[in-house]
Amino acid sequence: MDERPIYLDYNATTPVLPEVVDAMLPYLREHFGNPSSSHVYGRRAQAAVDRARQQVAGLIGCDASEIIFTSGGTEANNLAIRGVTEAREDRRAVVTTVIEHPATAQPCAWLERHGWRVTRVRVDRDGRARVEEARAAVDATTALVTVMHSNNETGVLQPITELAEIARDRGAVMHTDAAQSVGKVPVHVRELGVDLLSIAGHKLYAPKGVGALYVRRGTPLRPLVLGAGHEHGLRPGTENVAHIVGLGVACELASQGLGQRAVRMQRLRDELWERLAAQIPGLGLNGDPVRRLPNTLSVRFPRASGNEVLAGATVVAASTGSACHAGHESAPGVILAMGVSEAKALGTVRLTLGRETTVEDVKRAADALIVSWRRIQSERR
Amino acid sequence: MDERPIYLDYNATTPVLPEVVDAMLPYLREHFGNPSSSHVYGRRAQAAVDRARQQVAGLIGCDASEIIFTSGGTEANNLAIRGVTEAREDRRAVVTTVIEHPATAQPCAWLERHGWRVTRVRVDRDGRARVEEARAAVDATTALVTVMHSNNETGVLQPITELAEIARDRGAVMHTDAAQSVGKVPVHVRELGVDLLSIAGHKLYAPKGVGALYVRRGTPLRPLVLGAGHEHGLRPGTENVAHIVGLGVACELASQGLGQRAVRMQRLRDELWERLAAQIPGLGLNGDPVRRLPNTLSVRFPRASGNEVLAGATVVAASTGSACHAGHESAPGVILAMGVSEAKALGTVRLTLGRETTVEDVKRAADALIVSWRRIQSERR
Repeated sequence: MDERPIYLDYNATTPVLPEVVDAMLPYLREHFGNPSSSHVYGRRAQAAVDRARQQVAGLIGCDASEIIFTSGGTEANNLAIRGVTEAREDRRAVVTTVIEHPATAQPCAWLERHGWRVTRVRVDRDGRARVEEARAAVDATTALVTVMHSNNETGVLQPITELAEIARDRGAVMHTDAAQSVGKVPVHVRELGVDLLSIAGHKLYAPKGVGALYVRRGTPLRPLVLGAGHEHGLRPGTENVAHIVGLGVACELASQGLGQRAVRMQRLRDELWERLAAQIPGLGLNGDPVRRLPNTLSVRFPRASGNEVLAGATVVAASTGSACHAGHESAPGVILAMGVSEAKALGTVRLTLGRETTVEDVKRAADALIVSWRRIQSERR
Repeated sequence: MDERPIYLDYNATTPVLPEVVDAMLPYLREHFGNPSSSHVYGRRAQAAVDRARQQVAGLIGCDASEIIFTSGGTEANNLAIRGVTEAREDRRAVVTTVIEHPATAQPCAWLERHGWRVTRVRVDRDGRARVEEARAAVDATTALVTVMHSNNETGVLQPITELAEIARDRGAVMHTDAAQSVGKVPVHVRELGVDLLSIAGHKLYAPKGVGALYVRRGTPLRPLVLGAGHEHGLRPGTENVAHIVGLGVACELASQGLGQRAVRMQRLRDELWERLAAQIPGLGLNGDPVRRLPNTLSVRFPRASGNEVLAGATVVAASTGSACHAGHESAPGVILAMGVSEAKALGTVRLTLGRETTVEDVKRAADALIVSWRRIQSERR
């Protein structure tokens, strides 16, 4: 019997696929050159970076020259937000939402402290950004609209195409943090109409510590980190060759069978929901039931906190809030923003599935969560 | 016979030690958790990061809590320079030198564009920063003094202890970019008296894409990248666990036998110099012959450009300037700053040795460089 708990926390991070590790290893062992070096060691490394850039571009439907490698999704968001606003100091306003990840919310708060006007669009009861509120907020002073493609807690897909159209109409740059979406659902930058899009490697079976920012050609952008001329001067620093190679292969693997994988994931996810809902009267579902990542299930246990439920179900590894804020007991902001009361929101558990999740995992996890919840109810009686 | 050229470009980047790769692999394969997750997957990853932090701290003689992991040396420098100046907006001046790496020079230029006064101290004929010039430049308006510990081109060690004392006397923060020094010579932050010190993993046999900033407790510093609370809130973003583990092990290995390794390196380096100098009349040595990294040999070939010499010695992989500016033909700024004429400076070749360099490598490389130089001379006649 496996000692390790069932991993249902794929939105926090994913394992690295064996094919990805295998592709990386030569760049950790023999091909160690610095891509900036003009000798053969350097050229070999540069060729690997170039190939990875094409693989990433292939997944999201852009040109390789429009991909900037970063140290992860957080840096990609920071580069997008700080980079556009520094490049367009004539426009001193930013429009975002109330449900962004800290990697977006914090740079926006920094801008606010430094004199920018920041408008945070609210979400409806399904957890989707209110398009009409955005339409009213974006104007000729707006430098940037930045809205996540899907929410990390609820998985709810945001109306990016509509928001991008609003941004374009007003001459604002459109950025979306697609860290949770890329690899789980089709994401095509041209169809979305975005200028900037963030990718986080460790959410799509590449290692932690690498990401990318798509930058549509012609988008005004300044570098955040300054130094030598790497990545068109937009992201200096010697390239993380091994991780970049890994991200490239992970993107190529993500593009293969993406649709079938999404369907399988959704079926497993819905089975998990049905098993829980059948035994737990009053179990709530957070977020739009349809416009949602296929792997994400955010549920509200009645009359129990999410932390209590998970503490009693040690066979399940999941989270009650974003992994980035783990450790504190306040309810996830995104659930509250949907109009759920604090008392109810505290019952939230986020169960997120991945490539390695099996039907057996789903059954065992559901059983453990039900047993834990029932024990809490009986102790309360 | 080995097909690959003799690698004499260890200042551009180093191979990753096999022990380092071996230590990293479990964190790319089974232990894939997000350190922020509170379940066992997360705790395992967090423990690995904690251990690495102690290993890095051990090498430079600080407390583990004073180490911030970054994506590399460039980001560490940017965090130091932008972070201190943002935290101390009452002091609007920075003192640096004319020979800094772009990862320092460019953030300083950004500050200058945004209203800071930046003073660039010159170097003497040996390539060492002029301490008296620094003493005259640092005053009560100086937020930060930032000077590299050793120069990447010449290997010349800078008078950091003296500069740190000057900074401390005036209440300025002292930062040093020790990317080229750490692992090659003993570097102890308390002995140096610095507040901030940058480390680049890929210069000391860890992978590219990871670095660290030492931050003395109490040093005023704001984050550059903003987001969730990782690294005491000073460097948000999910940790690059595998690379951090690698950096930790590389630092531990660097501390073992550091002195003996330096002596061996210096002997090989000096043998290379002697072989070249014996056959090439007028060969010049760039930089202080003694106060220099033991692995670094920057020579000036007479009546030939460095690029010509290397082009005719394909068995040698080396560089003529910093790898970061490869491809353009202007002489390295640091050589010019020492008062060498442009014509002479263009003859520069940087030969940098490492753990895997053998006596045989040195002999073959010297022979190839001599043959190449002679061929150039005979073609010119």
